Amino acid sequence: MKVRRQPYSSPRERGTDSVKNDSYSHRFRGTSASGKPSDATSSVNFLDRLTARKILQFIGQPPIRLVLWDGSQFTTGVDDPIATLYFRDRASLYLTLLRPELSWGDHYSDGRIEVDGDLTGLLDVVYRGLESGSDWAWLNWLNSSLLHRKILNTFNKAADNIHHHYDIGNDFYRLWLDENAMQYTCAYYADPAMSLEDAQLAKMSHVCRKLQLQPGDTVVEAGCGWGGFALFMAKNHDVTVKAYNISREQVAYAREKAEAMGLADRVEYVLDDYRNIRGEFDVFVSVGMLEHVGPIHYPVLGQVIDGCLKPGGRGLIHSIGRNRPRPMNAWIERRIFPGAYPPTLREMMDIFETNRFSVLDVENLRMHYALTLDSWLRRYELHADQVEKMMDERFVRTWRLYLSGSKAAFTAGRLQLFQVLFAREQDNNIPWTRAHQYATHTKPDHADVAVVDD
Amino acid sequence: MKVRRQPYSSPRERGTDSVKNDSYSHRFRGTSASGKPSDATSSVNFLDRLTARKILQFIGQPPIRLVLWDGSQFTTGVDDPIATLYFRDRASLYLTLLRPELSWGDHYSDGRIEVDGDLTGLLDVVYRGLESGSDWAWLNWLNSSLLHRKILNTFNKAADNIHHHYDIGNDFYRLWLDENAMQYTCAYYADPAMSLEDAQLAKMSHVCRKLQLQPGDTVVEAGCGWGGFALFMAKNHDVTVKAYNISREQVAYAREKAEAMGLADRVEYVLDDYRNIRGEFDVFVSVGMLEHVGPIHYPVLGQVIDGCLKPGGRGLIHSIGRNRPRPMNAWIERRIFPGAYPPTLREMMDIFETNRFSVLDVENLRMHYALTLDSWLRRYELHADQVEKMMDERFVRTWRLYLSGSKAAFTAGRLQLFQVLFAREQDNNIPWTRAHQYATHTKPDHADVAVVDD
Repeated sequence: MKVRRQPYSSPRERGTDSVKNDSYSHRFRGTSASGKPSDATSSVNFLDRLTARKILQFIGQPPIRLVLWDGSQFTTGVDDPIATLYFRDRASLYLTLLRPELSWGDHYSDGRIEVDGDLTGLLDVVYRGLESGSDWAWLNWLNSSLLHRKILNTFNKAADNIHHHYDIGNDFYRLWLDENAMQYTCAYYADPAMSLEDAQLAKMSHVCRKLQLQPGDTVVEAGCGWGGFALFMAKNHDVTVKAYNISREQVAYAREKAEAMGLADRVEYVLDDYRNIRGEFDVFVSVGMLEHVGPIHYPVLGQVIDGCLKPGGRGLIHSIGRNRPRPMNAWIERRIFPGAYPPTLREMMDIFETNRFSVLDVENLRMHYALTLDSWLRRYELHADQVEKMMDERFVRTWRLYLSGSKAAFTAGRLQLFQVLFAREQDNNIPWTRAHQYATHTKPDHADVAVVDD
Repeated sequence: MKVRRQPYSSPRERGTDSVKNDSYSHRFRGTSASGKPSDATSSVNFLDRLTARKILQFIGQPPIRLVLWDGSQFTTGVDDPIATLYFRDRASLYLTLLRPELSWGDHYSDGRIEVDGDLTGLLDVVYRGLESGSDWAWLNWLNSSLLHRKILNTFNKAADNIHHHYDIGNDFYRLWLDENAMQYTCAYYADPAMSLEDAQLAKMSHVCRKLQLQPGDTVVEAGCGWGGFALFMAKNHDVTVKAYNISREQVAYAREKAEAMGLADRVEYVLDDYRNIRGEFDVFVSVGMLEHVGPIHYPVLGQVIDGCLKPGGRGLIHSIGRNRPRPMNAWIERRIFPGAYPPTLREMMDIFETNRFSVLDVENLRMHYALTLDSWLRRYELHADQVEKMMDERFVRTWRLYLSGSKAAFTAGRLQLFQVLFAREQDNNIPWTRAHQYATHTKPDHADVAVVDD
């Protein structure tokens, strides 16, 4: 490990240096977002240097440069680091080692930690390093034990958690989600060159093909976001949809859209918890809600599906997942998605096993979510100034880290995206093969509609 | 429930009556296979009648007729029962209630229990009834607790178990398996009208597409049966294969075939346990072995795969499975497949989770196995006389029940067939979509070869 000391200079002063940039890398602003003073005058001691080295060791010696508040530099011997990580004070350095997820995120939001270069790339190599190294398992364990809260989504808690994230404001999400259907879930890039808009339409189409929607079918959707998928199904597959959501802002938006599209007679939005689903339906579908359910509630979700699905019914659950159980990233769970937990396939079986469902098809679309997040991130950065005007600089940085970190978690294999298709155990009228899912897929046949533009 | 008493007459004497037959339904032979005397002279008492009614209740009141040794008939009020079940003595009646799986199977083999009509259909409705009724859960529990042995497949035990089933004789299996490749696993009927031969070729092709075999790839196959799939891969995809199997007869047969086909330089058959796999490979594949591994060995299997798969390697496991955990049918486990256990998806995760594999794709081909078994059963019945000459009548009946019961277990949703595709967690060079699996699938492009005919 090389340690080079040189007088501190911000990347802005130094230019881009040898640091790799991509279109949405952002520049160090020189002042912390919170306006807190840095330790620029405090000299770096032996313990600080040791800590910096331990951090590089902990994250698996990735090709990054680490710079302390006095300008001390630490690298792992790579000439062309993909990013430079600045610690503006001692606390941000020590807390990164002790509470890597939570403190690192908060200090990044505050501007006490800064990244120059490819933020997503940096997080990707850090995640890969963390997965590979076992020396620091005790620290991971400590973090997991101390920082992670038990996910108990009671009705009220669930409503609070959803309000925290989804009611930030429709205008904010409109800045960077797809125009047609405001899909805040993984898109399906049948062709990687697709636009985000086409990929979100392809995702909805892919799900409908898996579910083999027939005209006249009744569909219940658990967690419907801004309602785009319910409208897509009603408009393109001539079905009626009852869609549940506990986000007030999203339901208000969705109802307005349904009226504007003349679909209010076939799409009903219900402002209520999935546990209160009533009625009998041909199809149960849930895209991006399971992450907010919490594993202890999966058997209940299974019972809800069992209670509302007709004998020959079909179901699909689309959710972020894991390859092995692990608590939600503490920072994301505290600051972004309270109550969230991405399950493993094993954990998801709690929905199906005890309720006599048969899993027919599981598809992992991990890399599609990386591409979706890439699109979101590019659009987000294009509108960063607007976001700052709507919110503040801290918010801009928080969401930048959240989107970048999520993309890195998918590219590094820490997160998965599972689509699980299921039917009742004794139903033999199931799809014979999956060939129908791929009939004419590269050109989504419903590109004209989904949700009308404003 | 109607109880009709009439003088006993065998179905042969009565003609086909109202009983539905299909092409491979078989006729009651009038004498027990073991030559044991029936209780025809013993009169049926109150307790016998109660037991008969309890059996019908236990199996969910299916549309079948039950006839005791004195000719007493019991139905569930259906005019046109799909089959008639004869108990030729008191012991077979009582033991059916007390040890339904094991005793029923053994007494059927002995001819002390006889079925006139659609045996598979009878087993299907019985299985469905057993799944739906919860009144008799205690009896199921009792059966599970008392009759099911712990699956501990040590190296020697595994060899004994495999020898018991697979070394019955290649000539026997040749009578009813597909001609080309002797595939004793679920076929893939890309079109339900396919022949068994085409469907087995389509299965091998489907697996190769999932694995995206490239010329020059090295493949390790765990559990290779008569070697047909290894030869198929070498011949059609220009790969080299190292195939493991602990069945002496199968390996001898496979080596001979490889020589005859001029593929011995590219396909090596190793008479050894999967736990002794050595080397590094681009692809790991196992079709129909996991059923013989036993769940406590799944983490070890995962370690074996981890140890032999290159960083960018792909893997596929094809196995019979369950929707929820349940011991193997006691009769099948004792008489047909010692040491066998079909896992749930949850249980299969023990292979992947701790060894940093990512599940990419799960396909459930349950109905394809029902169709495969239907083909096997039809061919088996066409050669029943030959089988009887090779073995004896009891063997013919035992295998008839095993094949019929297996088909019924798939049609009734008690068994599943999972194909699980996986890769290493941090490998981003995974298939972008699954469209390539369905490019030209209805016409298998390798129908000309697999294994040359004798």
